[in-house]
Amino acid sequence: MTQKPRILITNDDGITAPGIKHLWAALHDFADLSIVAPAQEQSGVGAGLTLRNPLHVDPVGWEKGTPAWKVSGTPADCIRMGFSILNAKPDLIVSGINRGSNSGRNVLYSGTVGGVIDGILRGVPGVAFSCSDFENPDFGITQEHVLQIVKYVLEFPLPKGTLLNVNFPKTETIKGVRLARQGMGYWMESPEERLHPEGNSYYWLGGIWKDHDEHEESDVALLNEGYATAVPIHVGEMTDHAIFKDRKEDFAQFFDNRVRS
Amino acid sequence: MTQKPRILITNDDGITAPGIKHLWAALHDFADLSIVAPAQEQSGVGAGLTLRNPLHVDPVGWEKGTPAWKVSGTPADCIRMGFSILNAKPDLIVSGINRGSNSGRNVLYSGTVGGVIDGILRGVPGVAFSCSDFENPDFGITQEHVLQIVKYVLEFPLPKGTLLNVNFPKTETIKGVRLARQGMGYWMESPEERLHPEGNSYYWLGGIWKDHDEHEESDVALLNEGYATAVPIHVGEMTDHAIFKDRKEDFAQFFDNRVRS
Repeated sequence: MTQKPRILITNDDGITAPGIKHLWAALHDFADLSIVAPAQEQSGVGAGLTLRNPLHVDPVGWEKGTPAWKVSGTPADCIRMGFSILNAKPDLIVSGINRGSNSGRNVLYSGTVGGVIDGILRGVPGVAFSCSDFENPDFGITQEHVLQIVKYVLEFPLPKGTLLNVNFPKTETIKGVRLARQGMGYWMESPEERLHPEGNSYYWLGGIWKDHDEHEESDVALLNEGYATAVPIHVGEMTDHAIFKDRKEDFAQFFDNRVRS
Repeated sequence: MTQKPRILITNDDGITAPGIKHLWAALHDFADLSIVAPAQEQSGVGAGLTLRNPLHVDPVGWEKGTPAWKVSGTPADCIRMGFSILNAKPDLIVSGINRGSNSGRNVLYSGTVGGVIDGILRGVPGVAFSCSDFENPDFGITQEHVLQIVKYVLEFPLPKGTLLNVNFPKTETIKGVRLARQGMGYWMESPEERLHPEGNSYYWLGGIWKDHDEHEESDVALLNEGYATAVPIHVGEMTDHAIFKDRKEDFAQFFDNRVRS
């Protein structure tokens, strides 16, 4: 008998969120699962780490004896703690299933994706799963797709440095699963003022979707058509190479002429 | 008389950190400054946002009447609150001066850079400034360079979507300022266990620099040689285009054969 793949599960909605239970249910027959997830919801934290507060780690009971821990930090903290707790790198990290879309440029803010990025930097492949429907996510219909997508990335590994960012559409049925390009839209949180009972103001960042002209093969466009989308996201050099090449000589000269330390 | 450029200052070390005072000092004669910075240190939070807690915003006294506010959140929160408080987009965002390097792939975790990313997504250019020396940063010798770099980006704007990530070397003198490529090294925080007086364990993420083979024109390499480095970072599509093109047909087929919703 071949060994089951070892998969580390995290999320950003917190360890008590329904989405992570569905992720577990989709994979528990297929894989050897461990769960290390935030004690509290961490939406919007991106790949952020907790450096200036201590991390508390507590075991949590889970169905069928799956080992599970909650961490007082972010998804990326969970991955770092997870490698340490398990004393080994897993074969794969899966994160989610997030309540709400992480399509387009939300990759930068998504804690769901952030945890996977942290694994990628350690050479462990990963998949982030999100449901576009924030109000009434139907995690049940995504489970079969989750399993097949995980099988796909294990059978056909992505290159080192590339993760898969999967979103499910807000539609009642899923037309199919498509490899997609990252869209350019994003949630633009703008502050809204509220009044505290003591009279002072405070603010909430509330999400408003910021549309862009989207490529027809982008995740944003394909999600609107009812497809589940999988964007291969490369976590690598972000240099603007055109600017670097065009300007490097002039830039050096500009400063050599102006500043002498 | 031409109007001074309007610059919004933030950082991730918090509004009381020495670095932000030096940033202000470097620019206050040249520009019309406003400060919106985190009330508490936010190192490592990247572009993360505060979505599940309210934001509190309080005015803070500052030298020479510069308007300044502290925000109970991240640098990206500060930018969103800043645009709202000022009721206008500034001409430029500058962030820092961070205590400690944000070279290489720390761009993903750096709150200093995270605030600038948030401005970039709103079409406002920005520069992140960091001092490689964490123990004894000499912010004083960076001030002349800060001013010149800010003048440079105003005189020769970068394309929309591209920010400048500046790091100063750990050396006593600065050899010069160079446009650089993003290096691949990063701080790899691994948990260290500590014991609480009540007997339970907790953990700190402590930074260990993870070296990579670096390109000679990378920021990591040039900082080691004693140069200040400026990396043009493009905040755009992160699709792994090679994988997308190679696999999109086979991928669709794989799932069309396996999953029928």
